[in-house]
Order: sequence, then structure tokens, then C-alpha cells
Amino acid sequence: MSRRTTQDVPGLVEKARSGDARSVARLISLVEDASPALREVMALLAPLAGGAHVVGITGAPGVGKSTSTNALVTALRKRGKRVGVLAVDPSSPFSGGALLGDRIRMQDHALDPEVYIRSMASRGHLGGLSWAAPQALRVLDAAGCDVILVETVGVGQSEVEIAAMADSTLVLLAPGMGDGIQAAKAGILEIGDLYVINKADRDGADQVRRELRSMLGLAERPEGAWNPQIIKTVAMTGEGVDEVVAALDAHLEHLTGSGELERRRVRRAREEIEAIAVTSLRERWGDVHARTELDVLAEKVVAGTADPYTAADELLESYS
Amino acid sequence: MSRRTTQDVPGLVEKARSGDARSVARLISLVEDASPALREVMALLAPLAGGAHVVGITGAPGVGKSTSTNALVTALRKRGKRVGVLAVDPSSPFSGGALLGDRIRMQDHALDPEVYIRSMASRGHLGGLSWAAPQALRVLDAAGCDVILVETVGVGQSEVEIAAMADSTLVLLAPGMGDGIQAAKAGILEIGDLYVINKADRDGADQVRRELRSMLGLAERPEGAWNPQIIKTVAMTGEGVDEVVAALDAHLEHLTGSGELERRRVRRAREEIEAIAVTSLRERWGDVHARTELDVLAEKVVAGTADPYTAADELLESYS
Repeated sequence: MSRRTTQDVPGLVEKARSGDARSVARLISLVEDASPALREVMALLAPLAGGAHVVGITGAPGVGKSTSTNALVTALRKRGKRVGVLAVDPSSPFSGGALLGDRIRMQDHALDPEVYIRSMASRGHLGGLSWAAPQALRVLDAAGCDVILVETVGVGQSEVEIAAMADSTLVLLAPGMGDGIQAAKAGILEIGDLYVINKADRDGADQVRRELRSMLGLAERPEGAWNPQIIKTVAMTGEGVDEVVAALDAHLEHLTGSGELERRRVRRAREEIEAIAVTSLRERWGDVHARTELDVLAEKVVAGTADPYTAADELLESYS
Repeated sequence: MSRRTTQDVPGLVEKARSGDARSVARLISLVEDASPALREVMALLAPLAGGAHVVGITGAPGVGKSTSTNALVTALRKRGKRVGVLAVDPSSPFSGGALLGDRIRMQDHALDPEVYIRSMASRGHLGGLSWAAPQALRVLDAAGCDVILVETVGVGQSEVEIAAMADSTLVLLAPGMGDGIQAAKAGILEIGDLYVINKADRDGADQVRRELRSMLGLAERPEGAWNPQIIKTVAMTGEGVDEVVAALDAHLEHLTGSGELERRRVRRAREEIEAIAVTSLRERWGDVHARTELDVLAEKVVAGTADPYTAADELLESYS
């Protein structure tokens, strides 16, 4: 660890707490770059986080995610909330790199000092959300954001991961997207706390609502469980967005009152700790520059002199 | 381990080797159910596998994956090959369960004793391919399949995982799928050994080919590397399918000659061993019925008395 980072981190955290956007951005960069200061940052942030309402926003391409996020930020700012936006962009796991820069996105709020906007690539060979996303969330949380919107493209796995990361999950749909409801069947229906039918001024919005309602009606819910809400919006004009904010508030209240907030957050922390531990083990096992124990075992498996289960046992033994 | 499974497994493996489809199916079921006999099965299969050419087939919904797989099976059977088909169906990680049964799929080959067809759900909270898929592959391989076709829906992560599992990866496209090439940009272009433009009798096939060619042309390839091929087919009538089989043969020959086959398989075995080891660790950490070390640590993180990195260190220490 360089002298410079050791000196800077507590100062950065201090400044981030007092609302300095540049310090927030630098802390997120330290996290994203897996800087040697990462652990120091995390240790300093630990007691400061936990106050933000983390809202996941997911939906297929074309439903208007960015516009909806933008409209939500406007509505939340009107209420005086400090808002963080973490936009996880799809990108190849091979090439990395976000498709959109922070500045291009949501220009309406680019100059608002109470809005922190950050785009992240969804790198990591397990796909979906960036491994750094939970840590970046923690930075925004510790920096005093009241609400953090985490926006991902709802394809494949990411909508499930977002549900694991967020306190409330908002699933966006739109009429005229033939695959919308079909995709929903494949998992989205099980994760939404709030379903927003955007572009509701178009034909077919009521049909989407009917289909959604009948599908949600089939799900069994334990007594006292949250009843997922369906709201129609036109994000472009802001129509319906206040209702969305109110529903998010109601959901947070439900989570807090029922003890579900604590349970979700403990579950989230479990997964985070586990992921960090697994990553740390993989690093020890898989140094790509050296011929490791794992390589030797893999060659045995290919040669047929070991099966993968025996090899895994040996790998674990060699570690402990 | 029950007496029954200890007695049965060597017999089952013996029968599977001699071409008994029911024994192959039972072995895959043992693997899928994570039966106590799983380790015995794997140990017995280890020296028997390695002979099959594993071909991954991926593509967006609607490009004709099942029809193409079916046509490929027909072409391979004409050449006297024993063929395995592993169809990994998309399914919710929450609800599990394959959408299509083995019997409904590919009825043309349902009664052919030299064709083993198996559908698997893509369960597992990391999504994509089933954790059991590599083990099921090993069963089909040990049972003497010359070629194993692994079919997945190319959304999000699965096409990357299939590339990691297969010797050769075939990416299916079709004209008139606006998102086809766009999806391709997000990762498909980096994994295909063979690009098949199906439904080539429709308008736009040549345009897809042109776009694909120009995009593939941009990629830098080391000298001696395989040059990904583009083939047009009409899977419904079988047109072009012989060319696909020939290209797959050529690719296998290239892999063998260049040493790349061995390298890919060692890489695959590494990932398999690693995944088994990680799963085994997760099981030890995450017993959902007991309050584990991990729960205690997660609660500390939520309370802000520990950061996730320190918690991960403690978790790893408590294990070793």
C-alpha cells in the first residue's frame, strides 16, 4: 500500500460524508480498480452505511429504463432526497468496459450536487452485476444517499442478482414488447416488489396489466407478505412517477415493519462475504502465470487418471 | 451410501458402455440428483471419457436451435456416429424444472438406440448451465458418444459458459432477428468457432452474413488460429447441414493438430474442479438450517461492526 493512499482514505471518506461528489467518485474508483486501499475503504465505510433505501430497477431493453430512472431521480429530488444511481451496463465478459459514460447518461441531473450517478461495466466471468457493485453501493450509502437506484438490463441472470442486492425491486415492462411477459415468466415474476408498465400511453398497456395481474395472482404468498403492486407510467412526461415513489415508500415501510429488511440485508451480506471469500480462494488457486496445483489436477482429469470430485477434494486439502 | 447404489453403479457403467440407453439415462439421473453414488459414478467414468467431440450450440430464441440440432443429429447418424444431445433449458433459478421433457423434443430420433437425448434445467443460483451439465457430458462421453451436442439458449451468460464447456462452439443466427447481431456484439462474436445463419431461404440472410463477416474481420487473431466459418443453412429441409458437419470435423482436426483441444479441455477441467470445490465450500459455509459462522458474520456486516472483506477473511480462517 502506498503512502499516498494510506494518507488519503480517511480524508476522502470524511469529504464524501460531507457531500463532496468528487470524493464519492474517487472512493468508487478505488473500489472498482480493486486498489490496495480497497480494504481500508471498506473498513472505514462499514459503520457509516445502512441508511439508504436500495432500489433495483430491471427490465428488458427498450422498456425505457434510463428514462424511468431519470424521472424517478427528478421525483425524489423534489422531495429533497439525496439520490445515488448505479447503472450497470451490459458488456462482454471478455472485453469489459461500460458502454455509456457517466456524463452521457441522465444529463438532467449531471450538475445536481445531491445526485451521484455512476456507470459500471458488468464484468466478472460469472456475468451479471459487477463484483464491485455491492462495494460501490456501500460507498453511495455511506455518503449519505437516501435512495440508491441500481439499474440493470434484465437479461438472464442480472435480474436475479439485483433482487439479491436491492431492498426493493422494480420490474419495468412496456406494451408492445412481445417478449416482455414471456421473459417475465422466466424469473421476473418472482422478484418484483413493484411492476411498472411504462409507455402506458401506448396501445396494449391495459393488456400487459391484465396478463401481469393474472400471472401474479397465481403465485402463492404467505400471510402478511407484500402484495406486489402494478403501476402505469409515462416516464417521458413524468406521469405516474409520484405513484411509483409512494409505492416504494410503502414497500420500505412494509420491509421495516415486518423485519424483512433486516433479513434481506443479512442475506445480502452473506452473499457478499461468500463472494469475496470465493474470489480470494480462486486467486490463490488460479494464478494464471504459474503452473498451479489446480493445473496439475486438471491435467489428471483430462487424462482420466482422476475424476473431478476427487480432484476438488485434493484442491481443498492442499489449501487447508 | 446405500448398499443398493454401491452394488449397482459398476453394473450400470458396464451396461452404459455397451450401449444400453436406459443405463445411460439412469447414470445421468444419479448425477442430476446429486445422488450419494455421484462420486462413485464419476470415479468409474474418469478413465472412460475423453473420446467425444463436444459441440456447443447457442443462439437467441427463434433462430431454430432445436430444428438445427435435429438436422445435425440426422446428418451425424447418416455417418454412423453415436450422438448425445444435452439440451439445457432455460428455467427460473427459483422454481427449477425443465420446460420440455426429453420425449417431446426431437421426436425424429426418439427411437434411435444410438442417439441419447437429455434435457436439463439450468438451475443453480449462478444461472446459465446446470452445475450437473459437465457431469452429464462425462456420462454421455463415457457411454461412447462420438459427438455430443450441447444446446443452450444464448441469453446473457450461457453462451460464455457453453464456450468454456465445448470443444467447438456453433453460434446460430437467423435473418430478420433485429437483435441477432446486436446480441452478437455483446459476446457471441468472441466465442463462435462456427457461425450458422439458419433460415437462409429468407430475406436478409446475405446481409446477416455481410455484417457478421465485417465484424469478425475486425477481430485480431494470432497466426495459426482457427478462422471462424460462416455457413448458411435451412435446417428445416436439411440444406447446408452437411457443410456444418464438415466444418465441425475440420475444426476438430484443427484443435487436435494445434494442441488447442488439450488446452481447452484442461481449462474446462480446471473450471469444473474449481466449481466443485467452491460448491463444497459453500455447502460447509451455508447450511441454511443452522445459524452458521457465515450468518454471524453477515449480521456483523449489516450492523456495521465488520466490513465484508474482514468478514471474508474470518470465514476463510474458520474453515482452514
